[in-house]
Amino acid sequence: MRTAKANVDLTTTLGSVTLPNPVMTASGTAGYGSELSEYMDLQEIGAIVVKSLHADKWEGNLPPRLHPTPSGMLNSVGLQGPGVKAWIDEKLPSLRNSNARIVASIWGSTVEEFAEAAFLLRDSPPEVVAIEINASCPNLEDRRKLFSHSIQAITEVVEAANVVNKPLWAKLSPNTPELPDIAEAAHKAGAEAVVIANTVLGMAIDVESRKPILGAKRGGLSGPAIRPIAVRAVFDTHEAHPELPIIGVGGINSAEDALEFILAGATGLQIGTATFKDPRICKKVIAGLSRWCESHEVKRISDLIGGAHG
Amino acid sequence: MRTAKANVDLTTTLGSVTLPNPVMTASGTAGYGSELSEYMDLQEIGAIVVKSLHADKWEGNLPPRLHPTPSGMLNSVGLQGPGVKAWIDEKLPSLRNSNARIVASIWGSTVEEFAEAAFLLRDSPPEVVAIEINASCPNLEDRRKLFSHSIQAITEVVEAANVVNKPLWAKLSPNTPELPDIAEAAHKAGAEAVVIANTVLGMAIDVESRKPILGAKRGGLSGPAIRPIAVRAVFDTHEAHPELPIIGVGGINSAEDALEFILAGATGLQIGTATFKDPRICKKVIAGLSRWCESHEVKRISDLIGGAHG
Repeated sequence: MRTAKANVDLTTTLGSVTLPNPVMTASGTAGYGSELSEYMDLQEIGAIVVKSLHADKWEGNLPPRLHPTPSGMLNSVGLQGPGVKAWIDEKLPSLRNSNARIVASIWGSTVEEFAEAAFLLRDSPPEVVAIEINASCPNLEDRRKLFSHSIQAITEVVEAANVVNKPLWAKLSPNTPELPDIAEAAHKAGAEAVVIANTVLGMAIDVESRKPILGAKRGGLSGPAIRPIAVRAVFDTHEAHPELPIIGVGGINSAEDALEFILAGATGLQIGTATFKDPRICKKVIAGLSRWCESHEVKRISDLIGGAHG
Repeated sequence: MRTAKANVDLTTTLGSVTLPNPVMTASGTAGYGSELSEYMDLQEIGAIVVKSLHADKWEGNLPPRLHPTPSGMLNSVGLQGPGVKAWIDEKLPSLRNSNARIVASIWGSTVEEFAEAAFLLRDSPPEVVAIEINASCPNLEDRRKLFSHSIQAITEVVEAANVVNKPLWAKLSPNTPELPDIAEAAHKAGAEAVVIANTVLGMAIDVESRKPILGAKRGGLSGPAIRPIAVRAVFDTHEAHPELPIIGVGGINSAEDALEFILAGATGLQIGTATFKDPRICKKVIAGLSRWCESHEVKRISDLIGGAHG
């Protein structure tokens, strides 16, 4: 595989954050980042987005937590994790040693818990280049809604997380037709960029046991199956709010898939499910983007952003 | 292939409609029904749901209208059709000759157009056993919303269509987290059953031309890729409203897929995208359901409805 040629500029600017290329890991699919260091030089990846962290330790859901579906995967890991402080003390040091750009993902089940998780990151080192607010989790104070299914709730969580001197990104759910409005609300509340999209709500049933397959019954659907859904979510949001930086995610498996998102309006990209099959996929997509730009005489990948509009 | 044994009862009751088995074609995937008569005795299928009809002739969208995606298909046919009256005069007679149970699907871009389409069906023959209201189309009077993304709009279209002495079914969109409430509203407004779910909003972009692939840009995603989404939509709606008859649709390809929907809470089933690959799929799924029930000592398939709950 050829590496990126100097004559193709993959530099990516998301609000106040500049990355050497647009490709990141998606939260929850690459552990705490250093797990991938045996497969790639993490410095070569745009950024490493770590598994979503609660202010406190969290047990997660009952097994089974993963189930393959046609061209996709259901998961209900339930955001198991060590909590922000333990992550900073135990996991972050080895990731810092890799010189990776790190994005810490946080979640909560109340607005207050988002504020706590963000606050605990206030003294995190400069390698933590942004905080991703995982707003696609259920709001304990409004059981029927995810935070990112409500303009009021997304506004509250982004404002609550704005207690840390780091750029904020908001990861949103594709399961609402109000997504472009929710994205704008997140931006107005202080998010420099939005991540579109989290998993699609799904489930599978085992016909022999006559029970839901996942331990938590319901899960999130990811992988190539949902790529057309995520591409449209990015396209619709970019059309409604062309100035809002978008990080596209959903079933990216190749440079061509990544280009679909960029042409739809994404500035950055995240790769999730594909990492399970190929832990080197981020590196391969970066090289593929570079080759594609070279062969298509595109000097700067940023020239392609939103190119499928108009 | 063995045919249904007499000792397995596949009879399906949806409100006031009784069908010999739960399997129907999905609207838009089997033309006007008689197209399939060379592959199957249409009488053996639970019901034939015809392509959605507007009160008037409709041209549909620019090509391309179909595009394959991972384990799925995007379509933006745009509901091309001859209009209700021409359908009754030109297409319905041959379908009646097949002795099939027929479900006429109607759509409109305003509440008034739904009323017109329904009214034109007032004198349709008894073989038309139900009217399916395709409420997953854009509301011209509220551009940003599909009818089935709003409790008020779904109520209005179902009430407007209630001008014909036939049972009404409402086909709903899976693209809103409010689906269970929308389903209940449709039922309260007069729908005897709800069809869950229509396609998922999606699109695909051609990276070489840097343009959306479909002529209409956006389309609806169907096929096995979305089955986990549709199964969950049925499960959530059945959990919230266990007395509401549901017709499950989304990526059914086999008897096992069909059973997932039944266990999630579906009483009836529709098969769409799979028909393009195998025009005999409905018949095969019916035979498969019969065999499965026999081998699992299930006497009545209705005993399985909602079996994955609790």
